[in-house]
Amino acid sequence: MEIDYSHIKVIGFDADDTLWVNETYFRDAELEFAKLLSAFETANKIDQELFKMEMKNLPVYGYGIKGFVLSMVEMAIELSNNTVSNKTISKILDIGKDMINKDVELLEGVEDVLQQLSKKYRLIVATKGDLLDQERKLEKSGLLDYFHHIEVLSDKKEANYSKLLNHLDIKPSEFLMIGNSLKSDILPLINIKAHAIHVPFHTTWLHEQVEVNHDKSKQYQTIKSLLELPKLLN
Amino acid sequence: MEIDYSHIKVIGFDADDTLWVNETYFRDAELEFAKLLSAFETANKIDQELFKMEMKNLPVYGYGIKGFVLSMVEMAIELSNNTVSNKTISKILDIGKDMINKDVELLEGVEDVLQQLSKKYRLIVATKGDLLDQERKLEKSGLLDYFHHIEVLSDKKEANYSKLLNHLDIKPSEFLMIGNSLKSDILPLINIKAHAIHVPFHTTWLHEQVEVNHDKSKQYQTIKSLLELPKLLN
Repeated sequence: MEIDYSHIKVIGFDADDTLWVNETYFRDAELEFAKLLSAFETANKIDQELFKMEMKNLPVYGYGIKGFVLSMVEMAIELSNNTVSNKTISKILDIGKDMINKDVELLEGVEDVLQQLSKKYRLIVATKGDLLDQERKLEKSGLLDYFHHIEVLSDKKEANYSKLLNHLDIKPSEFLMIGNSLKSDILPLINIKAHAIHVPFHTTWLHEQVEVNHDKSKQYQTIKSLLELPKLLN
Repeated sequence: MEIDYSHIKVIGFDADDTLWVNETYFRDAELEFAKLLSAFETANKIDQELFKMEMKNLPVYGYGIKGFVLSMVEMAIELSNNTVSNKTISKILDIGKDMINKDVELLEGVEDVLQQLSKKYRLIVATKGDLLDQERKLEKSGLLDYFHHIEVLSDKKEANYSKLLNHLDIKPSEFLMIGNSLKSDILPLINIKAHAIHVPFHTTWLHEQVEVNHDKSKQYQTIKSLLELPKLLN
């Protein structure tokens, strides 16, 4: 497949599961949550119900850890028919605080690649989630200096990206987005005629999973690791 | 007092309690919370303890309704020595959802003033809190079209404002901030040699209360309503 990247001026990076590990921590939290409630239901059922609760609450709470914790508390009360103990609810709150306070674990080659690309391109972060969480992770990551601009979006749909490009004062053809989520980082960009490169992470949140038809899939490239990026762009 | 506003290019508006009512809803929520826990403690004690809990959790949760709700749940468990009922915790979660879903109630004259000022100045919103909450409120407010840029900051200290001015590509002397909080909207701006005008709201969160010495207080003006703003700038 031949895609011409020669007009690219700005490269946008998704953060969670593109620059550093994230989804893994949510999966771990879900396992812990299922263990805490194992007296009431099977792990499988708890998992399914928690996902439904998160989807119900997404329009209210948005993305991020705090909304996830509030959904776990609500789910624990519902699943236990109002009998879950205060101690268990405290443990759920602790799961959330531990997630927020976790160290940042960079993915393979991230710093090398950013260093190389920052010489030729303006790099930005375009992420969704909680503003404070994301700023804190960037701070901890030691990567802040490579980025010209940090944009925390409340969602990653076509309109959000169009607004971002407007704000950056560049044309869609001059923007390349790199990320692990087809739904959030790749397809919206293709739809507004910008560029995108997919770097899958081994775990994807159910909410981010999509089917991609053959025509669309010809419009972006997929790589296994960020380390392949510099060669692809040269 | 004579302050020269003739170099101002950009005016930044705080949002909560400057453009619309906010703090009142937190006070109402605290009253409701104290009522829910009245079997355990006096309203006064509950209020004090909840504030301490919010301060303890602020570095973890940041500003906004979701962190406030998580602190209320933690406080209810602690205050009741692990005996608060699931029903009460559910009601605490509902308080939070009601706050998030509340209509936006604009303060006196806001739309008029923005309309006038937008002809002569670039207007932006500079607010802290939850990104999704603030975007949603702006959307509901009908004010979005008056603003050139919306900046949701994780905090409002000197460094946050300096970064913002850098990003806007203007000098401190060209920026005027309007807000109700001396601590967050006024003093940091005075300290970086930008301008600020104080519009007090009848209720101020304890965390935002500060003493101002006489020298500082001579460096900004205070008005009773946004309606006084256009005359002051002419």
